[in-house]
Amino acid sequence: MSLLVVGSVALDTLETPAGRADDAVGGAATYFAYAASFFTPIRMVAAVGEDFPEEVLEDLESRGVDVSGVEKRPGSTLRWSGRYHEELNVRDTLHLDLGVFADFDPSLPSSFADSEYAFLANIDPVLQSRVLDQLNGPKLVGCDTMNHWIQESRPLVDALLKRVDMLVVNDEEAELLTGDRNVVKAAGKILDSGPERVLIKRGEYGVIEFSGNTVFAVPAYPLEEVRDPTGAGDCFAAGLMGELARSGDLSPQGLRRAIVYGSVMGSFVVEDFGPRRLQELTAEMIDERYQLFVSLTDIPR
Amino acid sequence: MSLLVVGSVALDTLETPAGRADDAVGGAATYFAYAASFFTPIRMVAAVGEDFPEEVLEDLESRGVDVSGVEKRPGSTLRWSGRYHEELNVRDTLHLDLGVFADFDPSLPSSFADSEYAFLANIDPVLQSRVLDQLNGPKLVGCDTMNHWIQESRPLVDALLKRVDMLVVNDEEAELLTGDRNVVKAAGKILDSGPERVLIKRGEYGVIEFSGNTVFAVPAYPLEEVRDPTGAGDCFAAGLMGELARSGDLSPQGLRRAIVYGSVMGSFVVEDFGPRRLQELTAEMIDERYQLFVSLTDIPR
Repeated sequence: MSLLVVGSVALDTLETPAGRADDAVGGAATYFAYAASFFTPIRMVAAVGEDFPEEVLEDLESRGVDVSGVEKRPGSTLRWSGRYHEELNVRDTLHLDLGVFADFDPSLPSSFADSEYAFLANIDPVLQSRVLDQLNGPKLVGCDTMNHWIQESRPLVDALLKRVDMLVVNDEEAELLTGDRNVVKAAGKILDSGPERVLIKRGEYGVIEFSGNTVFAVPAYPLEEVRDPTGAGDCFAAGLMGELARSGDLSPQGLRRAIVYGSVMGSFVVEDFGPRRLQELTAEMIDERYQLFVSLTDIPR
Repeated sequence: MSLLVVGSVALDTLETPAGRADDAVGGAATYFAYAASFFTPIRMVAAVGEDFPEEVLEDLESRGVDVSGVEKRPGSTLRWSGRYHEELNVRDTLHLDLGVFADFDPSLPSSFADSEYAFLANIDPVLQSRVLDQLNGPKLVGCDTMNHWIQESRPLVDALLKRVDMLVVNDEEAELLTGDRNVVKAAGKILDSGPERVLIKRGEYGVIEFSGNTVFAVPAYPLEEVRDPTGAGDCFAAGLMGELARSGDLSPQGLRRAIVYGSVMGSFVVEDFGPRRLQELTAEMIDERYQLFVSLTDIPR
């Protein structure tokens, strides 16, 4: 089943304790598209400037990503440069130029309206809602958000949450949304506010998922070196949504499988700068790491 | 198989966001003995003052804890009072009076010398080594330590590590021991320094275990309320060592089972102040929660 993603496309300059990369292709939609393309055909909605390398869009197309929803506009692509601390969950934004992303107002090609699966990556909740308006009853909608929107556009975030099936946020965002540091209480409040399922990302500690009365936790895969954490959360969402769209299995077991595939994709992307690692992956490598997660967590009965 | 524990016994005054408790029975050896007694007979080595309530020792004895190694000495029992922050992994020591613990120099009853399993809870590494000197070739020795000894008595800690099979520390201690924040690298260095296995406790995120080429991670059980985190690490060690002593199964699968039992005991103790929750547990409740861990983490193959 085809999976739609809307979000940012960027050119990033990244500094981490492991090195740096200049003008790496980035943005949530880019990471998502690369990672989810291993699972199912992707429909990508985004905006790029005249400076965006055409060969990246060609690379994505060759991987089964329909880029007809990627608008090329006069001006420059969103540029972000950031520096990560030794504690990789802390980063400073050194420079941000929104470029054509400042006026991004996603207009979907009509051929995208029947998308059954959709992921609304972190953008203005107004725009996330407008994308939903253009879809004909999708089967499953996931969304992300961030501190900025929770603090500045709370009513819009609340309205959006009533329209999505699954929220994917990190632990700080869950706390900010609910005022609860306890993950069980925070998840309970989020489920009360709309989505049937909430996935809380905990960085190097993994992911925990709550839906109704069930809870599922997966540790992150222990890596000896994280070269660049950028895109980990987007690739998690990509493996998750990609596997759900591929299998169509929305049962608790199907969701668990998808969460592990999300964890697999998140664990790969951080092994190199930008989406480089995703570009060299194979389906076999993905399935092999899935089995590593099984053996990492397997408890004798 | 009988399991020896040496460590502190204390009277604690605890303040947490959920309330307070005055003169609660505490100390690593106490928590350990209560929690491990569900698995196997315990031999306890500690020192208490004249003010220590006799009925606690009687309660422990009724649970299969041999308290003949608990020396009653003139003076007062170690007293600690602490206040936990909203972030429960941060706590302030408000008051500390070492009492008879200041001159603690563990002398084991001769009947304890044949203990096959031993846990050296967090005390001066000199004393931990002296306990080992009094044992006749135990089958498995686990130990804990803390920042203070790593910083102030490093050569003694290093010497001890060469004599133990299993180190149980938290992530901060692992970083302090190795200079590595990355848990894989830190664990590798610890394994190089002596123990065959290292277990790194990550508070609300669970535990990760490294031995040779294998790694096992268990998330913590998600609790809606943690009333008092005191003793969680000691009860983890107790479930771990207790189950290993009960089963005698030191295979990778046996170790995994023991780590989950450790996680179970850690998850129970924090549900109430002091060791209160341990006093009301049954074997059935423990096995039931073990199964909750299985369903919390079960990944479809």
